[in-house]
Amino acid sequence: MSPPAPTPPDPSDPPRQGRLILVPNTLDLDAQAVDIQDLLPLGVLRQAAALQHWAVENARSARSFLKRVQAVTPLACPLQALAMAELPRPRKGSGQTVPAAEWQMLLAPALAGHDLGLLSEAGLPAVADPGAALVQAAHRAGIAVVPLAGASSLLLALAASGLNGQSFAFIGYLPQEAAPRASRLRDLEAASRRLQQTQIVIETPYRNAALLAALLAGLQPQTQLSVSIGLTGPAGWTHTASVAQWRQAPRSMSDREPAVFSFLA
Amino acid sequence: MSPPAPTPPDPSDPPRQGRLILVPNTLDLDAQAVDIQDLLPLGVLRQAAALQHWAVENARSARSFLKRVQAVTPLACPLQALAMAELPRPRKGSGQTVPAAEWQMLLAPALAGHDLGLLSEAGLPAVADPGAALVQAAHRAGIAVVPLAGASSLLLALAASGLNGQSFAFIGYLPQEAAPRASRLRDLEAASRRLQQTQIVIETPYRNAALLAALLAGLQPQTQLSVSIGLTGPAGWTHTASVAQWRQAPRSMSDREPAVFSFLA
Repeated sequence: MSPPAPTPPDPSDPPRQGRLILVPNTLDLDAQAVDIQDLLPLGVLRQAAALQHWAVENARSARSFLKRVQAVTPLACPLQALAMAELPRPRKGSGQTVPAAEWQMLLAPALAGHDLGLLSEAGLPAVADPGAALVQAAHRAGIAVVPLAGASSLLLALAASGLNGQSFAFIGYLPQEAAPRASRLRDLEAASRRLQQTQIVIETPYRNAALLAALLAGLQPQTQLSVSIGLTGPAGWTHTASVAQWRQAPRSMSDREPAVFSFLA
Repeated sequence: MSPPAPTPPDPSDPPRQGRLILVPNTLDLDAQAVDIQDLLPLGVLRQAAALQHWAVENARSARSFLKRVQAVTPLACPLQALAMAELPRPRKGSGQTVPAAEWQMLLAPALAGHDLGLLSEAGLPAVADPGAALVQAAHRAGIAVVPLAGASSLLLALAASGLNGQSFAFIGYLPQEAAPRASRLRDLEAASRRLQQTQIVIETPYRNAALLAALLAGLQPQTQLSVSIGLTGPAGWTHTASVAQWRQAPRSMSDREPAVFSFLA
């Protein structure tokens, strides 16, 4: 049975619940050297500084984010006094999902009237990152969800690729084993050709070079392939060319920086 | 025949060409009331202020953007003295694309050694917006493409939806006529179910209500539907519920603010 629809709030009522605020992180994975003001809007930093309750992907990186925020604008309460909970993770390989009750528990501060921040390790929470289940639970509980303006490496890479930005799909990770990966690539390339849809895939950094090699081996020569790495960083680059051109002039890939791979057949 | 692969630049050489800088715009469509520092990172504003050559979707809105930038950080040269070209548009219904030579011409400043800014009317250039052909031409000419950190309304809406952010497709516009639209919706819903892929569609604001009605009529009752409107604005909201719940408690849609519609079967 479906849960009952939440009653639409009467705008004349004072808010009784806090909101779930989606706070963007930088894309530079905690490079303390750069002033965070250069990377995130002041409005976002001020709203993050005002939050006293957090649900975060990783507490250590969240504290380090808030230290950078603090250098720009004072926090509403001292870093050590913030209420911070980590998002639950399903045990690897268990095939189990996190029980709904755990997400519900994380929302307790919002249900008690406090705004609750959601933060991931880089970029937007809940996009190619944990957090969507918490957002879903917030909607079910009638808690307002407010996304603050921030960048996603996926869309910066897509913009920089020059490939079709009017139709695209984010696929996530390809299978790691060669045969299923090659078969999946063939399917994605066929879909890309049929729909004129840019396909976006990612990989953990230490497998960047392996994924590039698999793309060059598996895609058709005339398919356009774009790779972005180290976006918004000083050494970042985006290169777009046909697979045939890539094969003639391959590029070495860092095994430490996140990369985004896009192709259009 | 494919064009020859560009020679990879030797990092010890001084740069001989300018770069194509993808400058994010705000999502508030020129609401001068809000300080632009609250919406875009200072680093982006400074880099935009330094650019003297622009390729823009709309010159009027680009000037208005640069006036807001100027209120925060001085422009490298007076607004009236900036070199600004509008992106060519294919004539509506002509079925023709813009000739490659026109894109090439827009790149002249970069080929002459100047950084060139690319700006659309809202959000990221070249994503659900014109500009990708210029980025493509830049790659062909060996011009470095640098995306600056900015928000896309599509991904803010996706993050706020709570729907699957690990697999999603941006479809763009649905057909306007009822029969082909219904048939396309059925296909997209089937793909969403099969791939567990969130489908994202948009519409011009004055048809927001019509699209919502079409989604409520065409999708299965248990499909999750999320609507975001007025993102980053004071009156913005995101609502996610099953189609059955939406039907019981429909919401009125502004016909002036851009909205993003996402669903997951």
